[in-house]
Amino acid sequence: MENSANTDGGLRERKRAATRAAITAIARKLTAERGLNGYTVDEVCSEAGISRRTFFNYFPAKEDAIIGHADDELPHEVIDEFIAGGQSSPPGIISPTLLQDLVTLSLKLSENMAASEEDTRQLIGVIKKEPQLILRIIGATEQREAEFAKDVALREGVAPDHPVVQMAVVLLGNIARRSSLAYFSEGNTRPYRELLLENISAARRLFSQEFQEPAPAEGRP
Amino acid sequence: MENSANTDGGLRERKRAATRAAITAIARKLTAERGLNGYTVDEVCSEAGISRRTFFNYFPAKEDAIIGHADDELPHEVIDEFIAGGQSSPPGIISPTLLQDLVTLSLKLSENMAASEEDTRQLIGVIKKEPQLILRIIGATEQREAEFAKDVALREGVAPDHPVVQMAVVLLGNIARRSSLAYFSEGNTRPYRELLLENISAARRLFSQEFQEPAPAEGRP
Repeated sequence: MENSANTDGGLRERKRAATRAAITAIARKLTAERGLNGYTVDEVCSEAGISRRTFFNYFPAKEDAIIGHADDELPHEVIDEFIAGGQSSPPGIISPTLLQDLVTLSLKLSENMAASEEDTRQLIGVIKKEPQLILRIIGATEQREAEFAKDVALREGVAPDHPVVQMAVVLLGNIARRSSLAYFSEGNTRPYRELLLENISAARRLFSQEFQEPAPAEGRP
Repeated sequence: MENSANTDGGLRERKRAATRAAITAIARKLTAERGLNGYTVDEVCSEAGISRRTFFNYFPAKEDAIIGHADDELPHEVIDEFIAGGQSSPPGIISPTLLQDLVTLSLKLSENMAASEEDTRQLIGVIKKEPQLILRIIGATEQREAEFAKDVALREGVAPDHPVVQMAVVLLGNIARRSSLAYFSEGNTRPYRELLLENISAARRLFSQEFQEPAPAEGRP
């Protein structure tokens, strides 16, 4: 009989994710307090109760620990379900439920909203202290979008640079970010779900308007 | 008879815009070369052939000169035409040509694409040298979006925080940025117009899919 730690890959992955998230939270807190050069990896390890070896197992460097790990935000099982949802249409044909399933996915991911509020506050503290890290954060966001584009492409059986895949990732990402910004804004009393659906509905009204390609102008790009 | 410099407000405004743009180009070049504290406002003035008084007439500080002036990118007459296009529908009702006119507007603005390529290169140089300026650049972009939201709201006779106005500004802005990124990417041979229209078409395909509000989950935000 195998050890349960070996058979229950889900549990082990959750433990790994929890350790990773703890490292990131501590690294962000210390950066916000003292700046990037105001603390050592050893201090992070001591606060997290892990060894240096464990730290470098998760992150190649301090900066990477601050940015955090993409997988901690997109749970595997939710993504797998999203990908399986594309089986209703043959590969190469965009499935008719793509928008529907993207919105459902956004709502599922928002269940971790309380965690992401704390995350956002920490990141703002980091950026105030070390503004140059924003380039890495933007880079990490772009990389996550590229990863998610691969998932959408897999689901639809098309290339990741397919325009509908690209627009799905970029525009839904924007709508979700915009909605959570409104959700976390001071004085907001409306649920996230309502804000997201309002924005989706507005986007649908706009993009379902009649449209004809404008006549090209001479000698222009 | 009045002096032509007084009657021709358009010419004067173009001259002002040209001076402002020259100041910004020089400030960006010097920042990229020497960093923010590696040059003085006097050096910018001497290169631009203007007085300190003229400089501060245009920009309150060096950093503002680097960011540049929003009006230099959105010509008044193009915006006025866009706003007038909303008269086809009564105030409070979103005009049926909003999407069409937004795309036409994006294409008109892209006529200055060669200038904006040079701009983009300069800004990248600035950010490499002084990464913390990216927060100001993001702030300036958000301010421009807020200004443009007011224009769209005026056109439609609704409040600037109307969801369709917000989505129009955010999503079209994103599609335009995305399209110009692809246009300027190495090895691209396709015209901007084609890239923009492909993305608009993809967004329309996505957002015109059937959609039903997902059932709410119990006890979730």
